[in-house]
Amino acid sequence: MKVTVVGAGAVGASCAEYIAMKNFASEVVLLDIKEGYAEGKAMDLMQTASLNGFDTKITGTTGDYSKTANSDITVITSGIPRKPGMTREELIGINAGIVKSVASSLLEHSPNTTMIVVSNPMDTMTYLVHKTTDLPKNRIIGMGGALDSARFKYRLAEALDAPISDIDGMVIGGHSDKGMVPLISHAARNSVKVSEFLSDDRMKQVVEDTKVGGATLTKLLGTSAWYAPGAAVSSLVQAIACDQKKMFPCSAYLEGEYNLNDICIGVPVLLGKNGIEKIVEIELSDAEKAKMQESAEGVSKTNTLLQV
Amino acid sequence: MKVTVVGAGAVGASCAEYIAMKNFASEVVLLDIKEGYAEGKAMDLMQTASLNGFDTKITGTTGDYSKTANSDITVITSGIPRKPGMTREELIGINAGIVKSVASSLLEHSPNTTMIVVSNPMDTMTYLVHKTTDLPKNRIIGMGGALDSARFKYRLAEALDAPISDIDGMVIGGHSDKGMVPLISHAARNSVKVSEFLSDDRMKQVVEDTKVGGATLTKLLGTSAWYAPGAAVSSLVQAIACDQKKMFPCSAYLEGEYNLNDICIGVPVLLGKNGIEKIVEIELSDAEKAKMQESAEGVSKTNTLLQV
Amino acid sequence: MKVTVVGAGAVGASCAEYIAMKNFASEVVLLDIKEGYAEGKAMDLMQTASLNGFDTKITGTTGDYSKTANSDITVITSGIPRKPGMTREELIGINAGIVKSVASSLLEHSPNTTMIVVSNPMDTMTYLVHKTTDLPKNRIIGMGGALDSARFKYRLAEALDAPISDIDGMVIGGHSDKGMVPLISHAARNSVKVSEFLSDDRMKQVVEDTKVGGATLTKLLGTSAWYAPGAAVSSLVQAIACDQKKMFPCSAYLEGEYNLNDICIGVPVLLGKNGIEKIVEIELSDAEKAKMQESAEGVSKTNTLLQV
Amino acid sequence: MKVTVVGAGAVGASCAEYIAMKNFASEVVLLDIKEGYAEGKAMDLMQTASLNGFDTKITGTTGDYSKTANSDITVITSGIPRKPGMTREELIGINAGIVKSVASSLLEHSPNTTMIVVSNPMDTMTYLVHKTTDLPKNRIIGMGGALDSARFKYRLAEALDAPISDIDGMVIGGHSDKGMVPLISHAARNSVKVSEFLSDDRMKQVVEDTKVGGATLTKLLGTSAWYAPGAAVSSLVQAIACDQKKMFPCSAYLEGEYNLNDICIGVPVLLGKNGIEKIVEIELSDAEKAKMQESAEGVSKTNTLLQV
Repeated sequence: MKVTVVGAGAVGASCAEYIAMKNFASEVVLLDIKEGYAEGKAMDLMQTASLNGFDTKITGTTGDYSKTANSDITVITSGIPRKPGMTREELIGINAGIVKSVASSLLEHSPNTTMIVVSNPMDTMTYLVHKTTDLPKNRIIGMGGALDSARFKYRLAEALDAPISDIDGMVIGGHSDKGMVPLISHAARNSVKVSEFLSDDRMKQVVEDTKVGGATLTKLLGTSAWYAPGAAVSSLVQAIACDQKKMFPCSAYLEGEYNLNDICIGVPVLLGKNGIEKIVEIELSDAEKAKMQESAEGVSKTNTLLQV
Repeated sequence: MKVTVVGAGAVGASCAEYIAMKNFASEVVLLDIKEGYAEGKAMDLMQTASLNGFDTKITGTTGDYSKTANSDITVITSGIPRKPGMTREELIGINAGIVKSVASSLLEHSPNTTMIVVSNPMDTMTYLVHKTTDLPKNRIIGMGGALDSARFKYRLAEALDAPISDIDGMVIGGHSDKGMVPLISHAARNSVKVSEFLSDDRMKQVVEDTKVGGATLTKLLGTSAWYAPGAAVSSLVQAIACDQKKMFPCSAYLEGEYNLNDICIGVPVLLGKNGIEKIVEIELSDAEKAKMQESAEGVSKTNTLLQV
Repeated sequence: MKVTVVGAGAVGASCAEYIAMKNFASEVVLLDIKEGYAEGKAMDLMQTASLNGFDTKITGTTGDYSKTANSDITVITSGIPRKPGMTREELIGINAGIVKSVASSLLEHSPNTTMIVVSNPMDTMTYLVHKTTDLPKNRIIGMGGALDSARFKYRLAEALDAPISDIDGMVIGGHSDKGMVPLISHAARNSVKVSEFLSDDRMKQVVEDTKVGGATLTKLLGTSAWYAPGAAVSSLVQAIACDQKKMFPCSAYLEGEYNLNDICIGVPVLLGKNGIEKIVEIELSDAEKAKMQESAEGVSKTNTLLQV
Repeated sequence: MKVTVVGAGAVGASCAEYIAMKNFASEVVLLDIKEGYAEGKAMDLMQTASLNGFDTKITGTTGDYSKTANSDITVITSGIPRKPGMTREELIGINAGIVKSVASSLLEHSPNTTMIVVSNPMDTMTYLVHKTTDLPKNRIIGMGGALDSARFKYRLAEALDAPISDIDGMVIGGHSDKGMVPLISHAARNSVKVSEFLSDDRMKQVVEDTKVGGATLTKLLGTSAWYAPGAAVSSLVQAIACDQKKMFPCSAYLEGEYNLNDICIGVPVLLGKNGIEKIVEIELSDAEKAKMQESAEGVSKTNTLLQV
């Protein structure tokens, strides 16, 4: 099992790190265009192997895509990071060019790969890959909902004063502050709905905190976050690599599901060796449906800027 | 089990990350003086909990040492980072002030803690803590040899084209390019000495590559490395927290061991609930003894700059 | 952190095994009365340490309770196993004598321990420990609901054709085929209620299969099961040892909670360093309340056979 | 990645358990001829998934080899267990028939599998598979030295009063009390030879204890051990499945290596996706060479009983 991560910035390196620590892959290739940078990150990470106990081999390369040949799974994290105050949408002009070029280079050497898109605006970049490559739709996965859900669970745990592993919850919709739809009515602690423990106001607060989750971190850190994005990617990669059939909200190309068409947006999917093995349609309340619709309109609007 | 890590820079955050992922501590407090920075790192890290599967609670604080009260183990990573071209020794002026102040603040709230010093020049900073606090010598541990050994194993694995988990080796002496003493004659793959597989020249190269391990990464990354330092700290912390009695080369205060006195320098020690439970004296060749002596002279010289 | 497990049969050995593999404890003592048996199990388990990667030390003893001194957590698995066709209730006569004696011996050497009772009939044996020792009620925990919940999730995953990690669900009530109350109305896949995916009949089948979970295995294996019981114990032990405040359904002594008094029966509790840190009262439907009441009556009836 | 384990006795079930817990395989099939037995073990093990945190799916079957189709790796543990007092060699008559039949059935459904032989007398059973199937020699691996090495490390750790993870050592030669060759002169703690810490007599004792390691456990347990054998198999399986190129002493078919021909016996090999990717010839002392020669003679003698 070979995995390539393009972009050795904080997010890309965290992807490589957590994939290695989950210890199922034989090889992770980290590729960056900055001279020596991916090599440096790979070397530092490999020096944790004897201390953190993994056997995955991480290597770095400065732009040599031949090193990525025959990757089972490829992850695109490239793009300029979101700066404080910048919306995900503003990134599109620059990042579309980067993502298109990276996807093309990856596919040249790994035509049968499953591709995970992390670059922002993520739903639109996922759509871009769909429109500009020959990959079947099940092999193109946008990482957003898994991260947003992790942040949702964090906020739920905070509100409940509970350990995060006791919490379950999902965020669907577009991967943006305004677009995401945290499914608070489903959220639970050990299968008991959180509404048993939290007031309506507190639940509303959790939803609001979740939606500005990325921005909150960008403000605190002075740059966008990377640990949780990397961890989310590693979980998707393992689900595919180990054919786990686990459910994650991911950006998937829809053809009628959730009454949406020709769009990539966050919905629950099952991930296995074929990538997206199923799009799961769950019941939504009327309010959730309306939010999902609104979210899709936002994503579609951004998509029109792509000129593909 | 409560652990505090002071300094939420890349090294400190990696310490917190790997301590949490080893999942034995109930709480890790990350403290930094930069407003909101430790809180941001802690938040991002906590958002990996549901994805990476740990239950340790990481919290951040901007300089409020009362939050660190009753920490069983404390880690000092504070100090300015080594810039490209800068020697570890040049850092001393600034970092001594920082470390002294941090150690004092930590001990005010956790008088019975075991303290791990990471700040550079590490052996001298460890000595500084010994001289300026009331902590017994077994509760003051300098992290250097565990990192250098991880880098040694990495270079050995590279030379042998072997997975790192098959390799064993130790680096003792001062934690600096010139001071460290990689024990190449002991190094082994699955207990078979590496000299069976490598030429003398290749072994010399491994030793040289190991000694410039930190500098190599600083050049590639544009700043000093952090993953492996964080991983090394987390292994020491777990050995102490879980009373494992494991052997690591650490900077310890010597009183006659290895014919050295009144110095903190890297030697093999057993780590358990009392910190350094034993200093292990292993046989050294005459050449190794000479290098160790030379290394100690270098450390002592730096120590004289401390004015304690 | 020292843990003692009394009984080196299949369940007790599995407890020791999984506690060690979670790698937070310094020491696990396995005690049995059968000459050499605990020593043998401990030795075999320790020989997995280099292959499974843990540093917990497992030792065995034939009946020498002084070796268990100062155990933070103690687990009682002793008792004769349930044979095919035998009800949990029939075991009481023999097992009460064993449990009382073991608890007394443990407390002699570890007066401040937290005690986990696994011996069957478990709720009654937990009650027995409450009545015959001076341990505060928060330090007496019966293991049953965690196992029954694991079996419930297994059956839910089977019905949903989903990986078990995607499933959440809880079983409360007495730890017996008739007594347990699987909370099917709360059960969820990734926070989405299973009723969205399963018919009423299928859900009823899941509940029935769960209730006979132990008996099904006893029939297949020719003896009662041990892996999942051991895993359930190890999770409770880690929650306490690492002060995780996680929620598990456990048999706890009730004084008015759920309208029950002077009984130990399965209810959701938070486990932390003080053992049961909180009994969580969740809303039950009228049907669930009735089942819980009925379950309690069954447990109380068994308790009357104790003659304490 | 699909793995089949034939034999759901204690060893086979432990193999399945630890393979699942290492969490790299999508599926483990456990097959036994005893009605319902493999299904029971699989069910009990799957009920640990939510507690021990793995996503590998374990299923059981009573003798239906079609369920094992397309297994990447197959493990044969079948055979009657060694009773107290019985030598490994006495088992040969019965077990040869079993192993031959199982190997044939496995290959019918998984012609390209890599096969690990655990049944005793192991070296001879491995040789039997070599002689009676079309599998290339690199795809036939006997598990013995990994277990004996784990037991060697256990005894070294005991003698050194050290944690096992600090110890390295290897056992080569035949997998029998008389045949095994513990390489005590290479054994080390953190790369420091154990002869620095132990007297000659103590080292001899370690070697003797290691050689009777299996028999010691059989005496204590009343049956042969299973945890460490299962753990050893799981490590070999992961090295192959994840293409780790790790070194283990395994029984391999020799054609001139170590001056031995037409024999399967324990030597250091590198395991990767092609099974045995390399046989590593290490330098042996004259005494070790003599022991290896003697060991080979013993194995060859047993092989003559095979009538293949």
